[in-house]
Amino acid sequence: MLTRRGIPLRTFAAGERIFLEEDAGNAMYVVRSGAVDVISFGKVLEHVGPGGVFGEMALIDDSPRAAAALASQPTEVAVIDKTAFLALIAEEPEFALQIMKLMAERVRRKPSGVGEA
Amino acid sequence: MLTRRGIPLRTFAAGERIFLEEDAGNAMYVVRSGAVDVISFGKVLEHVGPGGVFGEMALIDDSPRAAAALASQPTEVAVIDKTAFLALIAEEPEFALQIMKLMAERVRRKPSGVGEA
Repeated sequence: MLTRRGIPLRTFAAGERIFLEEDAGNAMYVVRSGAVDVISFGKVLEHVGPGGVFGEMALIDDSPRAAAALASQPTEVAVIDKTAFLALIAEEPEFALQIMKLMAERVRRKPSGVGEA
Repeated sequence: MLTRRGIPLRTFAAGERIFLEEDAGNAMYVVRSGAVDVISFGKVLEHVGPGGVFGEMALIDDSPRAAAALASQPTEVAVIDKTAFLALIAEEPEFALQIMKLMAERVRRKPSGVGEA
């Protein structure tokens, strides 16, 4: 689904940054090959491998990046801006459900019980 | 959008429970009138008023309810099961985006920075 509609691909070398904390966030990313580390305050919060998604939070609520993302090896990602995001959702509702599942997992990982209804 | 496709409505009296912690969660709710308290360990985590959504987490990842929901006044809700949820998303991608915004807000409220990319 990520190639046929002309969604742009980008490649990154090992160690190259994809975005930094506080960057404006106008796209989310799907890893096609390679791996990405999501990092905040020098701590790796998540490793994202092929098929994995990162950067969706800033896209969804138009906020700055709350963490940095670095390619940990040669990596290719699909870059999904808001227009493409809404088109994907409309065409494949299961895609939206997958993003929501990822987000639900993050909410449930919270130490407190806030918002877990 | 919540009436024309025959989405069921339910009414609750003040103080009546909508679901309890650990209940199976096969639907989310949109408040049409009244107000709902989302409660865990005796603490009100969220007040949800007209237009607000609750119970989406368990619907999304098929997990038991992690909090209870009680009507705090006479309340009418629309009950959205997974079939209706996917249909709504397909027809109105902005609906999916609204749910994601709500979830992003919850992730960002976390004390730690985990998952905030």
